[in-house]
Amino acid sequence: MRAIDVIRKKRDGGELSPEEIEFFISGCTAGRIPDYQVSAWLMAVLLRGMTGAEIAALTESMLHSGSVLDFSDLPGRKVDKHSTGGVGDKTSLVIAPLVAAAGVPVPMISGRGLGHSGGTLDKLESIPGFNVNLSLAEFRRVLATCGCALIGQTAEIAPADKKLYALRDVTGTVESPPLICGSIMSKKLAEGIDALVLDVKTGGGAFMKSEEAAVSLAELMVETGVRMGKKMVALITDMDQPLGNKVGNALEVEECVEVMRGAGPADLRELCLELASWMLFLAGRVTSLEQGKQLGQELIASGAALERFREIISLQGGDSGVIDDPSRLPQARHRLPILSRTDGFVSAIECEQVGVASLVLGGGREKKEDTIDPAVGIVVHKKVGDAVHAGEPLATLRYNSNARLNEARRLMEESYAITSQAPVSQRPLIHSVIQGTRHVEVGK
Amino acid sequence: MRAIDVIRKKRDGGELSPEEIEFFISGCTAGRIPDYQVSAWLMAVLLRGMTGAEIAALTESMLHSGSVLDFSDLPGRKVDKHSTGGVGDKTSLVIAPLVAAAGVPVPMISGRGLGHSGGTLDKLESIPGFNVNLSLAEFRRVLATCGCALIGQTAEIAPADKKLYALRDVTGTVESPPLICGSIMSKKLAEGIDALVLDVKTGGGAFMKSEEAAVSLAELMVETGVRMGKKMVALITDMDQPLGNKVGNALEVEECVEVMRGAGPADLRELCLELASWMLFLAGRVTSLEQGKQLGQELIASGAALERFREIISLQGGDSGVIDDPSRLPQARHRLPILSRTDGFVSAIECEQVGVASLVLGGGREKKEDTIDPAVGIVVHKKVGDAVHAGEPLATLRYNSNARLNEARRLMEESYAITSQAPVSQRPLIHSVIQGTRHVEVGK
Repeated sequence: MRAIDVIRKKRDGGELSPEEIEFFISGCTAGRIPDYQVSAWLMAVLLRGMTGAEIAALTESMLHSGSVLDFSDLPGRKVDKHSTGGVGDKTSLVIAPLVAAAGVPVPMISGRGLGHSGGTLDKLESIPGFNVNLSLAEFRRVLATCGCALIGQTAEIAPADKKLYALRDVTGTVESPPLICGSIMSKKLAEGIDALVLDVKTGGGAFMKSEEAAVSLAELMVETGVRMGKKMVALITDMDQPLGNKVGNALEVEECVEVMRGAGPADLRELCLELASWMLFLAGRVTSLEQGKQLGQELIASGAALERFREIISLQGGDSGVIDDPSRLPQARHRLPILSRTDGFVSAIECEQVGVASLVLGGGREKKEDTIDPAVGIVVHKKVGDAVHAGEPLATLRYNSNARLNEARRLMEESYAITSQAPVSQRPLIHSVIQGTRHVEVGK
Repeated sequence: MRAIDVIRKKRDGGELSPEEIEFFISGCTAGRIPDYQVSAWLMAVLLRGMTGAEIAALTESMLHSGSVLDFSDLPGRKVDKHSTGGVGDKTSLVIAPLVAAAGVPVPMISGRGLGHSGGTLDKLESIPGFNVNLSLAEFRRVLATCGCALIGQTAEIAPADKKLYALRDVTGTVESPPLICGSIMSKKLAEGIDALVLDVKTGGGAFMKSEEAAVSLAELMVETGVRMGKKMVALITDMDQPLGNKVGNALEVEECVEVMRGAGPADLRELCLELASWMLFLAGRVTSLEQGKQLGQELIASGAALERFREIISLQGGDSGVIDDPSRLPQARHRLPILSRTDGFVSAIECEQVGVASLVLGGGREKKEDTIDPAVGIVVHKKVGDAVHAGEPLATLRYNSNARLNEARRLMEESYAITSQAPVSQRPLIHSVIQGTRHVEVGK
């Protein structure tokens, strides 16, 4: 088999066999196929697409390019959740301990924030001492001890993805749904899970701005997981305004603790319970989503979820005192309110701009190498549909440096649209659910 | 400007500006843009195509990546011919001296054979001592002395093409008409010519098998040349059977000498006169094609064309004695006739297979690094429409080694189709002519 023939076949719109895909991915990972051939192939895949069978083979090859964890010795179905990312999207920190508290193991390998979207690892690292760089042996030990562990990508997991992603990033081939699917699913399935809940975001603050693109990617991922024998569901959820009220790493940890105390913003609470109930349902812990939601609410009300979070923090070297005293989290020195100029109602928030404003304050990364300031971010006081008066704060910037303060302020000021009448309809939090091959419209 | 943005724009089907193309091509040539980005861009160009304006800008940037010769101090319009290549396609060796003998300078930079098609340089090098590797200064001196010089690509000419072609070859992006056009036209226009006659082959022995593909490529090249201020014409000519009767390097030199003596096969003679008369016409040496053909015939009849060939050979260090004594050319030691198994008429010849048979005997290259045997090849006795008897030779293999003789023999035996009735219609030698934006069907 020759790399050039595999490139030509995809160039001409042919369907690659699993053997051809395995030859190409293993050759790329081992460095036998040079980068210039891989990038020509990636562009051909982006422009020609892939069939479901090809995407499954791609995911399989990427998955087996490295270690695939096996937790079959631990009792129960292992389950995880993956979000395609957004602004203020912090559900992992609530649902991982909550689902673990229900007795369902959650081996979660997460990513960092890039661009306007945050990342679970950065949020966890705002907790003093928290170590996301566990070895796979330590990962297993923490998981076995408290039913949940939260770590970052290791070199052993899906090295093909590391290689491919680095090339995609510089060759304009990031945006291909088959390649996105292969990248996400290979890393998630390497966790040794039996079931996966996907939270596919759509709207101005999501990578998939349009509903169609989000549904299409969700369907690809669900189909791929099902082909590989996993229980799968995807929720298409709203990212047209920030989720919850806090954006920024330590701020988001603080808000998650609020939710686990039974408080916190309603949208964040609702989405956490929805995702957690699907995880419990796919794991067989409950027999209906209603049961799942009820169990979730009980585990919050009893304090079990929060206690499980405390345990995870301790086992991963962090200061679990932040739970009782959030002031132990990094705090920004300065605050600047963003005031409404008129009376009226919030009709829209440019969600991506809010994410960029947080990045500009130092809370995110423009390039992979950038370091972040865990303390800074944005507290959102008004969301879509809320009434405001002139001079009333819409949001507050929390910052440490003046360097790009004006830019962040301008971004936030421009991100709010205020109209004289309350918006007639609001976007639902959960747009639809894709389970197996069924696609159910909800909340519309 | 960033390479990734240029890649993305082409990926999404946008039209690149001349500045973007120049940025990309100069960056690629200088090594500032890494190969993996160039190859992703090449694949996007292949799959998305280019507009006429983009192809002109590409050609311009590739042209100016190296030296552009300037022969404006030599009197008269400089003119050249380029063929897209085929089997037994040897017209350059006849028409370059012929047109030079008419007083029109022909600065010809040619290529080598690859795969089933032959190359002018390999044919010339079968003449003992002939040096195709002249410096550009020597090229100019020979051109000024005898009105014609025949050399190979130098490092100074269109280095962007060298770089791009090496990548195209290994990334499945050779077949893109815009890239083919840019490659051919940048090298030809670097010769400092005022006019160019294109011989675009179509049929089983051509790279463009279909008429449509040949016409489309010809139109691209003519349009590009016209945009760059050159007088242009393209002849779509037949390559569904070998041109002339001899295939192989020294054999083809021998056949060209026959033509310049006023003999030789009718199809080769006709195509040489046709191409030469277009060159003379575009150069302004004659005012009609009829005049051009008449002048060509006179220069053959008077021996002027042959004398000019003798002069070129001498000036480029070759043994011009081969003209009077073809046995001074390398001779194959063995002959094997390919006999017809039945009575009938030749209805078709698999032209590419004839080229491959010559290659298999050692007359061509499978890889760029292969060395060739100038003596070997094939003499074709029967062409399409000819009557044959069982046991009569269709062709004769000329060979030195038995190594792959059976393979060549099988290829030749299988390449002939014999039917009981004479074919009703034959393909014309010249299918159509594309001049400026006019496309004239002829010979049909």
